[in-house]
Amino acid sequence: MNKREAGDTVRAVMWEEGAVRLLDQRRLPGAEDYLRLRSAAAVGDAIRNMAVRGAPAIGIAAAYGVVLAARECHERQGRDWREAMDPVLQTLGAARPTAVNLRWALERMRARFADAVDAPETMLLEEARLIHEQDIAGNRRMGDLGAGQITGAVLTYCNAGSLATGGYGTALGVVRSAWRDGRLDQVFACETRPWMQGARLTVWELQQDGIPATLITDAAAASLMQAGRVRNVVTGADRIAANGDTANKIGTYGLAVIARHHGIPFMVAAPTSTIDLAAAGAADIPIEHRDAEEITRVGGVETAPAGTCAENPVFDVTPAALVDLLVTEKGLIRGPDRDKISALFASG
Amino acid sequence: MNKREAGDTVRAVMWEEGAVRLLDQRRLPGAEDYLRLRSAAAVGDAIRNMAVRGAPAIGIAAAYGVVLAARECHERQGRDWREAMDPVLQTLGAARPTAVNLRWALERMRARFADAVDAPETMLLEEARLIHEQDIAGNRRMGDLGAGQITGAVLTYCNAGSLATGGYGTALGVVRSAWRDGRLDQVFACETRPWMQGARLTVWELQQDGIPATLITDAAAASLMQAGRVRNVVTGADRIAANGDTANKIGTYGLAVIARHHGIPFMVAAPTSTIDLAAAGAADIPIEHRDAEEITRVGGVETAPAGTCAENPVFDVTPAALVDLLVTEKGLIRGPDRDKISALFASG
Repeated sequence: MNKREAGDTVRAVMWEEGAVRLLDQRRLPGAEDYLRLRSAAAVGDAIRNMAVRGAPAIGIAAAYGVVLAARECHERQGRDWREAMDPVLQTLGAARPTAVNLRWALERMRARFADAVDAPETMLLEEARLIHEQDIAGNRRMGDLGAGQITGAVLTYCNAGSLATGGYGTALGVVRSAWRDGRLDQVFACETRPWMQGARLTVWELQQDGIPATLITDAAAASLMQAGRVRNVVTGADRIAANGDTANKIGTYGLAVIARHHGIPFMVAAPTSTIDLAAAGAADIPIEHRDAEEITRVGGVETAPAGTCAENPVFDVTPAALVDLLVTEKGLIRGPDRDKISALFASG
Repeated sequence: MNKREAGDTVRAVMWEEGAVRLLDQRRLPGAEDYLRLRSAAAVGDAIRNMAVRGAPAIGIAAAYGVVLAARECHERQGRDWREAMDPVLQTLGAARPTAVNLRWALERMRARFADAVDAPETMLLEEARLIHEQDIAGNRRMGDLGAGQITGAVLTYCNAGSLATGGYGTALGVVRSAWRDGRLDQVFACETRPWMQGARLTVWELQQDGIPATLITDAAAASLMQAGRVRNVVTGADRIAANGDTANKIGTYGLAVIARHHGIPFMVAAPTSTIDLAAAGAADIPIEHRDAEEITRVGGVETAPAGTCAENPVFDVTPAALVDLLVTEKGLIRGPDRDKISALFASG
C-alpha cells in the first residue's frame, strides 16, 4: 500500500510562557484565534464555554489549569498552597459533567501535590506536560492499532481529532494512520448539531492535513450506509463505563444502531483515561444538558419561533453490545465487556 | 377521554382573486409573508426555491399553476390554448423530482383539458379547487384513522402539516386528531437539517394550534427512544412505490431503523396521490440533491470552512419492511406490501 504523510498540524492546547494557550474552538473555522489564560478560573471558564472541548483536551487543559492554580495559591500562601487547592479543583472538575478525563486529570495532578510542596509550578508542570505527551503518544498508538481495521470510507461524528485531544486525535488518529497506510478512501463527516463540531472542526482539521472529507447532515448518514458507501464508523468517547457502555456526542447512539442494522463495524477510539471503572454502566454516566439556545439559533440567527420549548442533551450512551471495536492505547478489544475491560487494566 | 379542539389555522396555498397566494415558507417563522403569483412560471419558481414545499402542497400549487398557464395560453391563442400547454406542464413537472404528487396533480389537470376548451380558467379552477378540497378531506380522514393508533408522545420529522398540504396535514393531521381525542401527550419535533422544517415550520404550526411541542436535534431522537419517551414515530411521504418503499425527507430512513430497534411503531401518513404505482420499488424513485450551500451556511452564516465538499441528498427511502403502518385516506395498512397497496387501489 502506498504510504502517505500522517499529518498532524493542529494543537488545540499548549503551555507557553507560563500560561495556557488555547485555540478558541468557538470561533473556528472563521477565525484562528488563540486565548492566553493565566488563571485557573479562566481555564474553568474556557472548558465551560467550550473554547476548548473534547474529553482528552479538556483533561489536558485542566491539568495545566492546576499548574496555574498552584502558582496562584503558592504566591498567596507559600508552602501551605495545598490548603487552598480544594475549591479550585472542585470548580475545575465541575466545569463539564460527562467527560471523565477532566476528573481523571485532576486526580492525577493531585497525586503529585505531596512531591511539589516547595516548587509547585515546576513539579506540577512536569506532570501536566507528561499527561499531554502521553495523550499524544497514546493517540498515535491507537491510530496504528485502529488503522489495521479500516478499509475504504470512514464515517465519523463530532470531532475526535487533534482539536479534541493533546494532538493527533482518537477517531481522527485512526483516520490519520489509515490514510498514511493507504487504507482509507475518504471521510464522511457528520455536521453534528447543534454545535457543528463536524462541519466547523473536523472538516477544517482534515483540510489542514489534506485528507479528503465530505460533509453531510447527521440525518444523511443512514442513507449513505444503506447505499454501501460507508465501510467503518469511527468515533471518540467522553466516558466509557466499566462494562463498555460508551457516552459520546448526542447522535452517536443512533449511528451505532444504524451501523449494526447494516453490518458496518462501529469502532470507538479512546484512551484508557476515558474509561471510568467507578461507573458500572450507562446509568452511572451523567448526561450534560446545555442551553436550548444552542438549538433555537445558529450563529445568532433564530431557527425556531419565539417561545420554542427545546431539549438539548449533548451526549448519549451507546450500549457496549453495539460497540464492535474499542481501541485504546493499551490494546484493541472486540466486543468490549466488563471482563475484557478489566483485563485491559490488569495488563498494566 | 377529554375532547380538545382539533385546530387547523394555517393555509399555505390559496386561490385568491385570480392568483395563487402562498405563505412563503422560506421566511417562516421570522416573518409571515404571502406571495401573490399571477403566472405559471412564478409558481414553478416558488416550487423550485421552496417558497412552497411538502408533496401535497406542491401538487396543489401546481394545479393552480395550470389554471394560470391555461389563462395565459388562452389569452394568447384563444381556443387553441391547449397546444401551448405542454412546455408549461413540463416545466412545472420538473420543478422538483421526488414528490410524485406534482406529476399526479398535473396529470389530473390535463385530463380536464378536453372539457375546458371554451372556458379554461373556470373549468380548470374547478378541478384545482377539487384537488385542494379533496386533499384536506383526505387529511382529516387520515387523521381520524391514524389517531386511533396513537398513545402518548409522538416523534415527527420535517413538516407534514397544514403547511405541507392543502390543510390539516398528513403526519400532523394524525397529531391534530390524536390531540383532539386526548390520545396525545406531546410532540417531539426533529429540527430537520438542513432546511430546518421541523424547527421553523412544525414547531410554529403546532404553536398556532396550542399542541405542546418540544424541539430536538435530529441526532437526539435515538436517545429519546432509548429512554422510552417516544411511543410513536409519524412522518409524511414524498413518494411511495408500489411495494410500499417510502421516500421522505432525508433522515426518515434512519429514524425508521432506530424505531424498529426499539420496537416503536413507525407510521407513514400520506394520501394515495403520493403512491406511485409506476415505481416498483426504491430504485425507481429519483432522489433530489440540492445545493451544498444549504449545509455549509445557515441563515447566511458560514458553518463550514471555505472549500468544503458537501453532499446534500434531500430525501431517502425507507424500505416497506420498516413501515409498520401506512395511513391513507382510503384506509390503514399494517405492514404495507405490493398486494395490500394494490388492494387499496382496487377498493376504489
